[in-house]
Amino acid sequence: MRYELYYWTGIQGRGEFVRLALEDAGATYIDVARVEGDQVMMPFLRGERSGARPFAPPFLRAGRLVVAQVANILAFLGPRHGLAPASEAGRLYAMQLQLTITDIVAEVHDTHHPISNDLYFEDQRPEARKRSKAFCEQRIPKFLDYFEHVLEHGDGRHAVGRRHSYVDLSLFQLMSGLDYAFPKTLKKVQRRTPHLRALRDRVAERPNIAAYLASGRRIPFNEDGIFRHYPELDESQATRMLRKSR
Amino acid sequence: MRYELYYWTGIQGRGEFVRLALEDAGATYIDVARVEGDQVMMPFLRGERSGARPFAPPFLRAGRLVVAQVANILAFLGPRHGLAPASEAGRLYAMQLQLTITDIVAEVHDTHHPISNDLYFEDQRPEARKRSKAFCEQRIPKFLDYFEHVLEHGDGRHAVGRRHSYVDLSLFQLMSGLDYAFPKTLKKVQRRTPHLRALRDRVAERPNIAAYLASGRRIPFNEDGIFRHYPELDESQATRMLRKSR
Repeated sequence: MRYELYYWTGIQGRGEFVRLALEDAGATYIDVARVEGDQVMMPFLRGERSGARPFAPPFLRAGRLVVAQVANILAFLGPRHGLAPASEAGRLYAMQLQLTITDIVAEVHDTHHPISNDLYFEDQRPEARKRSKAFCEQRIPKFLDYFEHVLEHGDGRHAVGRRHSYVDLSLFQLMSGLDYAFPKTLKKVQRRTPHLRALRDRVAERPNIAAYLASGRRIPFNEDGIFRHYPELDESQATRMLRKSR
Repeated sequence: MRYELYYWTGIQGRGEFVRLALEDAGATYIDVARVEGDQVMMPFLRGERSGARPFAPPFLRAGRLVVAQVANILAFLGPRHGLAPASEAGRLYAMQLQLTITDIVAEVHDTHHPISNDLYFEDQRPEARKRSKAFCEQRIPKFLDYFEHVLEHGDGRHAVGRRHSYVDLSLFQLMSGLDYAFPKTLKKVQRRTPHLRALRDRVAERPNIAAYLASGRRIPFNEDGIFRHYPELDESQATRMLRKSR
């Protein structure tokens, strides 16, 4: 099977979670927009091509099948490439963790776009600072404590069961992205995340991942992607006790 | 199988998407927190119970299995209760649509909490107005046009294939919630959403759903939930052309 991956050129973005799985699996794939340009995705997004219409990139074509939404693509690829647990309980748990990663990634995006995706960062900067403060002080610790606990209460090395899975690859990407975007904040939680840091290092050393990271296919993090380094947004302070709403 | 559903008392919230599936299926379930109080969920959220640790409610217990994340719970329940397609392609498509519903629901939440979930709405009101303006003008039309197209290019009556599924139930809830929270905006897009409106009416008339909606188990929408009616946030104006970022 030769897969076709469709995602915006020039950024890692959400496509990177899929790309890492394809690379780790040694799968044959074309990063179509990088060859033909972003406009190649438009007929799919307008619903003019056969197969499921995606709401947004990334989407993957596998034969006649079109699959969108990162967690869904990974759940599709996982069992085909030894990147998902065999049992139903394991697969449900992997999906649950992946969807929690999806949640924090959406929150990362909103640190620089808290008002609208249709405005530039510069046009929503005061709001971005407020949102990022809350994200760095409350949300990063809450999410990372959760994932750290997941590793600690598993075998210590893998998110799900005792085997490498797509969730490990996504946790690698999450930690890499957070380290890039919020280095001060990540430094503050460093001692609370030993298992996550060790997992990140182990994933980076997997032969296919190491080769990928060293290749030109791995676009560096930049300020057009989801994980953006704006120093003014990385100004975490001591966690304050705030009133809790739902 | 007697299911245990765990979700915050007093609101429909994200739990409602699961509740609708259980009710439509005529499944036997206990809404545990409504019987025992919200604190019954805490040992699960702290990772002190066996089974997968949820990051947040809702979660479902089925025997020894604990499943969290709405789309994941629905993908688990669907095949067991005739609420999911039989084919892999159909199930992937259902999940893709459900995750797109998850995305808009998260954006609905952020219209009243654009800065932090740990602050009250009143403490982030100016930002909420800005975010809601963008949501009403750009995002509601974009998402609803997409789902309308999905129905129109399917059999016209169902989101996936030719059979009722959990996605239809979630689209019912989405339309109901948007109508409650943003009545002016929804009125403006009324003519663009005939299939969605018809689907909403059909779902409301399904015997188990009609019985549920008439029961005390259906908590009315309110301003503690995800879909909140703050008139000041429903002030959509003519759609402006804005610069597009990613």
